This record gives sequence, structure tokens and C-alpha cells, in this order.
Amino acid sequence: MSLQKLREDVFQANSCLVENGLVILTWGNASGIDREKGVVVIKPSGVSYDDMRPGDLVALDLEGNIVEGRLRPSSDTPTHLELYRAWPEIGGVVHTHSTFATSFSQACLSIPCYGTTHADFCPGDIPCIRSLIESEVEEDYETNTGKAIVEAFAASGIKPLEYPGAVLFHHGPFAWGKEALDAAQNALILENIAKMAYLSRRIDPDVKPIPKYVIQKHYQRKHGPNAYYGQKNAQSGG
Amino acid sequence: MSLQKLREDVFQANSCLVENGLVILTWGNASGIDREKGVVVIKPSGVSYDDMRPGDLVALDLEGNIVEGRLRPSSDTPTHLELYRAWPEIGGVVHTHSTFATSFSQACLSIPCYGTTHADFCPGDIPCIRSLIESEVEEDYETNTGKAIVEAFAASGIKPLEYPGAVLFHHGPFAWGKEALDAAQNALILENIAKMAYLSRRIDPDVKPIPKYVIQKHYQRKHGPNAYYGQKNAQSGG
Amino acid sequence: MSLQKLREDVFQANSCLVENGLVILTWGNASGIDREKGVVVIKPSGVSYDDMRPGDLVALDLEGNIVEGRLRPSSDTPTHLELYRAWPEIGGVVHTHSTFATSFSQACLSIPCYGTTHADFCPGDIPCIRSLIESEVEEDYETNTGKAIVEAFAASGIKPLEYPGAVLFHHGPFAWGKEALDAAQNALILENIAKMAYLSRRIDPDVKPIPKYVIQKHYQRKHGPNAYYGQKNAQSGG
Amino acid sequence: MSLQKLREDVFQANSCLVENGLVILTWGNASGIDREKGVVVIKPSGVSYDDMRPGDLVALDLEGNIVEGRLRPSSDTPTHLELYRAWPEIGGVVHTHSTFATSFSQACLSIPCYGTTHADFCPGDIPCIRSLIESEVEEDYETNTGKAIVEAFAASGIKPLEYPGAVLFHHGPFAWGKEALDAAQNALILENIAKMAYLSRRIDPDVKPIPKYVIQKHYQRKHGPNAYYGQKNAQSGG
Repeated sequence: MSLQKLREDVFQANSCLVENGLVILTWGNASGIDREKGVVVIKPSGVSYDDMRPGDLVALDLEGNIVEGRLRPSSDTPTHLELYRAWPEIGGVVHTHSTFATSFSQACLSIPCYGTTHADFCPGDIPCIRSLIESEVEEDYETNTGKAIVEAFAASGIKPLEYPGAVLFHHGPFAWGKEALDAAQNALILENIAKMAYLSRRIDPDVKPIPKYVIQKHYQRKHGPNAYYGQKNAQSGG
Repeated sequence: MSLQKLREDVFQANSCLVENGLVILTWGNASGIDREKGVVVIKPSGVSYDDMRPGDLVALDLEGNIVEGRLRPSSDTPTHLELYRAWPEIGGVVHTHSTFATSFSQACLSIPCYGTTHADFCPGDIPCIRSLIESEVEEDYETNTGKAIVEAFAASGIKPLEYPGAVLFHHGPFAWGKEALDAAQNALILENIAKMAYLSRRIDPDVKPIPKYVIQKHYQRKHGPNAYYGQKNAQSGG
Repeated sequence: MSLQKLREDVFQANSCLVENGLVILTWGNASGIDREKGVVVIKPSGVSYDDMRPGDLVALDLEGNIVEGRLRPSSDTPTHLELYRAWPEIGGVVHTHSTFATSFSQACLSIPCYGTTHADFCPGDIPCIRSLIESEVEEDYETNTGKAIVEAFAASGIKPLEYPGAVLFHHGPFAWGKEALDAAQNALILENIAKMAYLSRRIDPDVKPIPKYVIQKHYQRKHGPNAYYGQKNAQSGG
Repeated sequence: MSLQKLREDVFQANSCLVENGLVILTWGNASGIDREKGVVVIKPSGVSYDDMRPGDLVALDLEGNIVEGRLRPSSDTPTHLELYRAWPEIGGVVHTHSTFATSFSQACLSIPCYGTTHADFCPGDIPCIRSLIESEVEEDYETNTGKAIVEAFAASGIKPLEYPGAVLFHHGPFAWGKEALDAAQNALILENIAKMAYLSRRIDPDVKPIPKYVIQKHYQRKHGPNAYYGQKNAQSGG
């Protein structure tokens, strides 16, 4: 993959956030990585989506050194890099302040699996990542944010690619995926799951997560070894 | 009706879901049936609405054998087929994860008739269909989903065409109608009824269903033998 | 005013409802009256807004006799006519099922004046009109609906043109104004007032109406004899 | 800056309110000031945004005398002028009735800092400004409204430019900034902060403000002397 192609993919992922109403002003950022080259491309900091062109995106190595680009990268770059370093299976990362996911962040609550919409994309609660203590914030806030996400997944024994993302105490959602555009779509999925979870809790304050066998069925029919959703492995006429 | 015409009608029904905000990504599917030929046309599985053309829709017989089409049909196809087999009076089926209807599904709650907006389209609660037990899920999840809907209507003695659809425990809404586009419009009606029911319950947690005579009046003026809503049987100048 | 001009005004009022998201499908209708000629123009019943042209609107006299038009008028026509007969000062009437106003209808609750947005347009609660008893529904539902509105205003001693409209038990809002387009804008105002009232009550269940002197100030600066809002009676350079 | 340029900037700020859904009908106004000339440009009163051209904006001096313009200025002009007189550091003022911010106004509640979205823009609660007493309303309502805002900031020892704006008891939000367009963006920020605060409180009625050290980190990384958000002071390749 050429750097130009990665720039275009990451640009498209950033545009996807705006088109789907996940980001206003400059409240979000998407990145993608070329694993062979070890190059991450990310949105520049504080640049309006209206004014941004693919050439404005910033290319860095995994240590944060700028490889190509005139602009300063997103202030959240160290969080993206930490996720890329810890999780070799991911190829895209997205951060937004989308309304409902952020509200779960602010309420410091993970998002239980209340329905098949959720189970179609992940087999458990969307984790709410702990807040950082004062020294973590002061020393290296953005890198430590990434570390807290990685630690939470490791502690729970859950796999990043089985989850669209996580919500962070006091902050908002991070999403990820195999590529930049997958991460952007996962940010959209996370927001919609959060919205429906919110509403379900308002309709019934005692709403319960759905049975495990329903979660497994929905997750497996999309993502399991015998998945029959989508067009992969499809046998026409079968 | 030619298969090409049915393809176009079902394509339009699928587009209607996206245009009305009932579906994001690939979270929904619409189908229609040609009863004379016994052919059902349905959205292909996991294909983006942006990329889909009428020729991508899949044609099947009522047993699920593909009659025409290069792609795998929606994973929910067996549910659609079960409804078509059980209810000869319907001509279109739609499944979505629309926000408010799905939230009632997640809260496992039927939607009471709180107002005339609801009564204009159906003379009672929108049923919430029971969850499947583990063996039903494992054996034939999608067909058994259809069976649970059909059984609920039979048990209540209510007629499918008098209801825009139903909400399914843990899952989301299915809607239906005389044709594919009617089913799509019923999915929109269901979502709006659900939204207003949600809000009415927030304004007054003890909100009561409306009197039966108001329900009957509104339902009958649109759908009864002496209906005077719309342009059918209209006598101009009268 | 020519009948053609009235048709265009009423057509514009109907379009305004759709453009502002107050109406989906055929869930609403707007009318206007030429007082000199005694002719009311109203939306035809059950006709899609997409397909409707000004020439499709129906012209009636105040007794409901069709003066001009090929189509059947809105099923709510007798309610419109009752309001025109009772209130000679109004020139337009609108009915919608807009989401928040309808939810107050369904909760059978008037809308208290919680803020200056409300006070800018009316000096008191938006009344919630009582439900009809069974015999009123059976005998002449739509005319009796109009009578219930008129009686409520008479009983409270409030003036129709000082209120954008009312919400009806179990049903939804009716709005009115000096002309058809004013009525449509009042339907929009009513919906937004309802939405903010809903949210205010969620933030503080004990929220209180604002002081009378604030209501009077805001209402009078827009509508009183010494109004200084807008461009009427403006003295440039003053 | 020419008066023509100021007109265009203020026109753009007004348009920004409509495009972002903060204003319907004529429910809002934006102004900007040329500090050198002492000239304020503001929206005319009650003029539809659709019909408005830059030349319709009204230019006044800081005492409210019209310098240029055929139309009557916004009825809220004295509030804008009071803010400009008291706070020489601001260059733009905006008033809206945006939905969520107004609902906090109606509930007479300041907006606590529940998350980093809020902390990114201000280091504390969005103040809710006290209601005016009857004599203040009768004597000079709009000027006294401005005075109440100014007094509240003085009493709290907080700086106007560190806050996007405030919500006013019973009324709605005022926002401000270095220029007219900044004020409009701050009105958008205020609305979104209000919406997320609303939702967070619904998810957890006992939601707590975030720790001071998180507020400081987020506020300082954007606005502090060592800010590293955005492109100011950026060292490319660093």
C-alpha cells in the first residue's frame, strides 16, 4: 500500500465521521497504519474537516516521529500509537465525542449487551475504561490513556477485534478495526448501540442483558467460523 | 408482475428504509413476493445500500431455493419466508434495527396504543414477541423467529394486516404489508409510534391506553368498510 | 385574493410542515380561508406530499360543500371548518402528529410556560383539550373535536390568536394563525415549545412556570401595543 | 477592518446558527464589534434568515445609536451592547434558543463539567444566570439581562473568554468569543455540552463532575501557555 493510498483511506475515514454526525467542529480524529512500513497516518490537530485535504494528514512512525507532513498531528496521537503498538491486529483507530457514547463515558458506565444489534458486533459489554490518576495525567496523559485501554482488555481476557471499541471514563469513545474505515464504522456502531442502550434503560430501568446463547448466535453468524452473514464464503445457488 | 418489476419494487422499499433513517450500514432488509409465481425477492446479505443495484437482489422460492441471483440472500431470509408461508395476505416484509422500536424490543415491552397516531394504523398494542429458547436458537434460529411471530398472532386472534408489524424480544422490529413498499412504510410508522410511546411514558409514567371507542373510530375511518380517509371510494363533489 | 393565490398559500403551508419535519407520510394537513368569499382550501385526504400539486387542494364553503376540486378533502376538514366558523379572526388551520406535541397529547397534559421561548408566542399554558365522550365520537367526531377546542378557549376566556394552538387528549396538536403559513409556523413553534418543556421536566421534575411579569414582558414586546420586536412600526435611526 | 467585512463576518455567524440547527424561524441573533471604530453590527429584529442579506444587518455605536442600516436592530441589542461595554476582550455575541441549553435555562440549572468535551472549552460549570426581579424587567429588561451576566462573572471571579457562554434563568443561552464566528461556534459547543450533560444525568442521576486535574489537563492542552492542540506554535517535524 502506498502512503498516498493510506492518506486517502484515512481521509475517507475522517470524512465518514462527519457525514454520520459523529463529529462536529474538530471533535474527533481517525488514523490508519501501514504495518509493513510501520507508518501511521492521522488527522492534523484542530484542523476543520471542511478545510482538510488528504495531503494535510500527518504521517508518523510508531514512536511518534513525523515521517511526512507540514502540520502537527492530533493531540490524541499518542493514544492511537499505544493501541497500534499493543495490538498488531488492528489497522485503524478513531476517537470521537459522539453524543450517546460520550454520555456513557461521562456516567462512567460500560454498555451492557441489551440486544442483538449489539451482539451482532461484539460478544459482551462495551467496556468503560477507568479514569487515570493524577500522576498518569500529568506525566503522559495521552499515552497513559492508551495503556489503560490495553490493560483493561488484557485484564478481561477479551480480544480487541471482537469489540468495536470502548468508552473512557469522563471522556468519550475510542473505536478501532482492521482498517481506518472499519474503525470509523465501528465508531458509528458504538454510538448507535449506546443510543439504544440509553433508551432501553429509560423504558425499563431494570432491563437485563440478553441471554448468552442469543449473544453467541448473533455474534457467531456474523463472525464465527461458520458465519453465514455477508458475501464471504457464499455459495451462490446453495 | 415481471420479476424485474418486483426487483424494482423491493429495491425501492430497501431505499425507503435508508432515506427515512430506519437503517444505517447494512442493518435492515426488505423483501417482496410475487404470489402467482411463488417468488420472493430480498436484499443480499451484508451488502451496503450505497453499492446495491436492483440486479443484486436475490430471488428465491418459498422454500429458500435461489431462483435467480449471484449473491447470498439476507441471513434473515428464513424469517421472511416463514411469514410469507403462514400469511398469504401479505406481500412484503421488512426488518430493521430502527432506534425506538428496537429499544422497546430490548426492554421486552409491547407498545400500548397511547394515541390516535397509533390507532390510525392498528386497533391494539404492537405485540412484543417472546424470546426463543436455546434449542430453538440452535436448531433454526431465523425460521423459528418467524414461527414465534406467527404463533403470537394466532394465539391473540389478531390479523397480520391490521398491524404494521411487531417488536421481537431482544432483537428489533419486523414489519409487513400488502406490498414491499407498504411494509417499508409500516416500518416507518412503527418507529414513530414507538418514539411517541416512549416520550408519553416519560412525560407520564402512568399514561393509559386510549379508550376503545377512540381506537375503533380512528382505525375504522381509515380501514373499516365505511372508511372515509384517503381517495378510495371518494365521490367528488359529495 | 384569488382562489389560485389561496391554493398556493395553502400548498406552501403544507410544504412547510414537511420541510420542518412536522409531518411524515400523510400525517397532517393545512388549510386557509378567504373570508370575503367564504371559501376554505385544504389538503386532499391521504395524498402523499410528494405527489401533491396546488391544483389537488380542495376548495369548500364553510358548511363543507365542495366548491372546486376533484379529490376528497382531508378527513379532519370538519374540525378546520368548526374553528373557522367559531373564530372569525383566524385565517389558517394546521393539524399534525408532530412528535413532542403529540406526546403531550398522549399524556393528556397541557404545556406550562417554562420559559421565554414559550412566552414570546403566548401568555399562558398551551391548553390540552378534553377527550370526547363516546356519543360525541360516534355522532360527528371531527366537528365535535373542533367544538371541544372552541369551548375550552371560551371557558378559559383566552383568545385564539394569542395562542399558537392546542394539544388534544389522545390525539395531537392543532395550530392556527392569521393565514395558512402563520398556522404552519405556529405548528413548528408548538412542537419546539413542547420539546423544551419535555426536556426541562426531565432535568427538573419540579420545574415551575416562569413568573407572570416575565411572561408579560416577552409577550408584550412582541405582540403588545408598544411591541418593539420585528420591523412593524420601526423608526430607522431611532 | 472595513464595516463591509464586519457585516460579512456577522452575516456568516448568523448563518452558522441556522446551518447547525441552533435557530429556527427568527429565534436567535449574532453580532460582532469593530473595537477600533466602536461599531457593533447585529441582526435586524424579526427578519427571516432566508430573506436576510449582509446589507440588512444594522450597525450601531456602543450606546445603541444606529450608525448605518434601514432596519430596526434585534430586540436583544441592549444585552449585546452591555456585554461589549463590560468585556473589552470579546468581539462577538450570540443569543439562541437552542434546545438543550434552553432546557437547562428553563430548569434554572448551571451545567456541571461532566466530561472532557466540556473541559476542552472551559474550566468549570457553565453558569446559570439569576432571573431578574420585576423592577429590573420593567425598567430596562435587555440591558439588565446583560448586567446580570456581567455581575455573575465578576462575582465568581471567572473570565468571560474562558467560557463559551452562559444559560439564563427562564430564557436561554448567550454565547460570546473573540469574533462573531467564534461566538457562533461557542453557541454550538454550549448546545452539545448541554445535550451530553442532560443524557449523562439521565443515565446516572448521581453523576459527578470530573476531577479538577482532568479539567485542568484538557483545558490547558488547548488554551494554556503550553497548549499543544491545534496548529498555533506548531513546529513541524518536531
